[in-house]
Amino acid sequence: MDQSMRKQADAIVSASIRAVQPDEAVGRALRGQTFPGRVVLVAAGKAAWQMAKAAHDCLGSRIEAGVVVTKYGHVMGPIANFDCREAGHPVPDENSFAGTQAALELVEGLTERDTVLFLLSGGGSALFEKPLVPGPVLQDITGQLLACGADIVEINTIRKRLSAVKGGRFAQVCAPARVFAVILSDILGDPLDMIASGPACPDSTTCTQAQAIAKKYNLRLTDEARACLATETPKALTNVTTQITGSVRELCTAAANACRGLGYEPVLLTDQLCCQAKEAGSFLASILKTHHGQGKKLAFLAGGETVVQLTGHGKGGRNQELALAAATGLEGLEGVCVFSVGSDGTDGPTDAAGGYADGQTAPALRALGLEIYDVLRDNDAYHALEKTGGLIRTGPTGTNVNDVAVALLNG
Amino acid sequence: MDQSMRKQADAIVSASIRAVQPDEAVGRALRGQTFPGRVVLVAAGKAAWQMAKAAHDCLGSRIEAGVVVTKYGHVMGPIANFDCREAGHPVPDENSFAGTQAALELVEGLTERDTVLFLLSGGGSALFEKPLVPGPVLQDITGQLLACGADIVEINTIRKRLSAVKGGRFAQVCAPARVFAVILSDILGDPLDMIASGPACPDSTTCTQAQAIAKKYNLRLTDEARACLATETPKALTNVTTQITGSVRELCTAAANACRGLGYEPVLLTDQLCCQAKEAGSFLASILKTHHGQGKKLAFLAGGETVVQLTGHGKGGRNQELALAAATGLEGLEGVCVFSVGSDGTDGPTDAAGGYADGQTAPALRALGLEIYDVLRDNDAYHALEKTGGLIRTGPTGTNVNDVAVALLNG
Repeated sequence: MDQSMRKQADAIVSASIRAVQPDEAVGRALRGQTFPGRVVLVAAGKAAWQMAKAAHDCLGSRIEAGVVVTKYGHVMGPIANFDCREAGHPVPDENSFAGTQAALELVEGLTERDTVLFLLSGGGSALFEKPLVPGPVLQDITGQLLACGADIVEINTIRKRLSAVKGGRFAQVCAPARVFAVILSDILGDPLDMIASGPACPDSTTCTQAQAIAKKYNLRLTDEARACLATETPKALTNVTTQITGSVRELCTAAANACRGLGYEPVLLTDQLCCQAKEAGSFLASILKTHHGQGKKLAFLAGGETVVQLTGHGKGGRNQELALAAATGLEGLEGVCVFSVGSDGTDGPTDAAGGYADGQTAPALRALGLEIYDVLRDNDAYHALEKTGGLIRTGPTGTNVNDVAVALLNG
Repeated sequence: MDQSMRKQADAIVSASIRAVQPDEAVGRALRGQTFPGRVVLVAAGKAAWQMAKAAHDCLGSRIEAGVVVTKYGHVMGPIANFDCREAGHPVPDENSFAGTQAALELVEGLTERDTVLFLLSGGGSALFEKPLVPGPVLQDITGQLLACGADIVEINTIRKRLSAVKGGRFAQVCAPARVFAVILSDILGDPLDMIASGPACPDSTTCTQAQAIAKKYNLRLTDEARACLATETPKALTNVTTQITGSVRELCTAAANACRGLGYEPVLLTDQLCCQAKEAGSFLASILKTHHGQGKKLAFLAGGETVVQLTGHGKGGRNQELALAAATGLEGLEGVCVFSVGSDGTDGPTDAAGGYADGQTAPALRALGLEIYDVLRDNDAYHALEKTGGLIRTGPTGTNVNDVAVALLNG
């Protein structure tokens, strides 16, 4: 392993992940903001506690009260006078509904000078919910949609209408107060109405579409549910300001800045990578091979979330596969490396956040009798990278804004 | 289909392929060269006739005589007083050996002031050959190597030693005359000793390696063959000048120039692409999605040769798969397209050179009841692109320097 390259990779990884921590991300979004009237806080999602904590650290007693709804085991202690609750995820339960109800009560009676600081993160869809139909009815309709093969867009079109808070309705409830939404994004391309089903985002779907979906799949609906599908969601919201933070774009920006700090000229290829992990690794290695030997210091960045094709029974994750696949193309080259990490610190079912490979990775494996092609076919990148010192370990990071892969070229 | 984008794609394709035609490529290599003494020409490979013709057009009667060995059906007419021959490919036959013998006789008796103009293209390995062992022995050894799973490097290490012209030996025969080699490259990364087994290139393999391979696979060898493996190939050649031309790098350069001419800033990603075709298409689409909407005119270029994973029984080729796979990511975007072509004008077993897709491709297919995912699983890109007007047809081009894929962004 090229120790100098590896050291730089670790520095870039740690700076990138630090920048998208919920506290850093919320701090960035709130810094310099002023709020005229009363301020109340509603935080929902897996990172709700961290986000609420960061908001309190930033605004202190300006926040009059708060309701925090996060996943079981995710409340790390009290925050000021906030009402911190834990609830069911990925399936909402009574505690989800109760927490959401508490939030709805908190935002009652606000005026147009007041602000609801709404902090949303992944998992908010289950944790922040008030169904307009009884639980069993909602479960039955969801079950029918899944069984008949409806896609995620179709499912959300229906489900938004069965909820008192999704599809922009939470923001409607907050009116006339202003909603300042800070969204920790973990969906590629940041479609606002998809993150937690967009409680503070105008809904682009229509009743006509919802009814067409019900007809297409011949859904069995109660009269109550049928009435919900006929009720329009808000198409415009004038009281909402949204800041997306901690997204994969910020992860890439932070990685690019860290590369620049080490003297590399960063080239952002994409922050919406979604192809097969090992093929992305091959592509990045091809880029390095082409630009190698021209005396340049370049860093090619690709953020997003690749997929793994399961063909074996080994241990690994998409980031480890990407790095290991790159090793084939990098074989024998000096001053190059490819590494990739998941911002949550957990790549696949492993204790590693991702993987690192350079020109010495393939020869080192061959010396051990391992061919990369075989390892990848067995989806066993973890054990191969373990042997070459190519595992990147960060521990759980407390956030999840997808992955970033970096191809470094020094010379 | 975005007609304006398609028109630009066609212009870029045609300019790129024109630049790597054997005649253009040979002309570029020979222009401005002067040769002091006598000049004789030896051309071997599938493009030998075109290359010899271009050399004659360029140097006229300065070339005293020539031997041209190409594939059956590839001699297009007489060229001056040249001895134009056709022979077996991919399996060498008696005509290959006779043609090569004529070339060896042509270069006899030259002095150090004289030049052998050696024009080499793909297929030269079979067409230009003089075995040092009887044909059946050569075939038996090759058969053993293939049967025991030896890789291409191992096979070439053995075969170079069983040949009087491969592994730099042709240049050795030409000495003391100067060899001016013009190589039309169709191998990624241009490893000179691999193209037609390097008749004019110092050989990097050793007798020790050859004997180790024979031992590893327990090859049955005649005494004659055993003696060949013990005879060293040239490790340095002082009488050779090599110009690689018409390579995939030139294809990319020509494509980049054509893009620049249309107002796009070209970004060469790689000229050594070798990943799966559809994953490369997805990667390129991800790049366009990320940079879209910033008012830029960019052209991302990736040359090389992708591979197709066969999972169905449809009709298509790697370039068509790449373009069609990109269509998924481009859906709905304006001012973007991805296209990819094989420089030989034949993509897979089809009459198309490649494929083109833009933001309207996926919706157009959906309107016809076709999902891209299903089409790709059936490897049926040809029929889908046929329906969207996305086939690129050039006819056979007379050269083969791999493929180039371009992702255009206008705005």
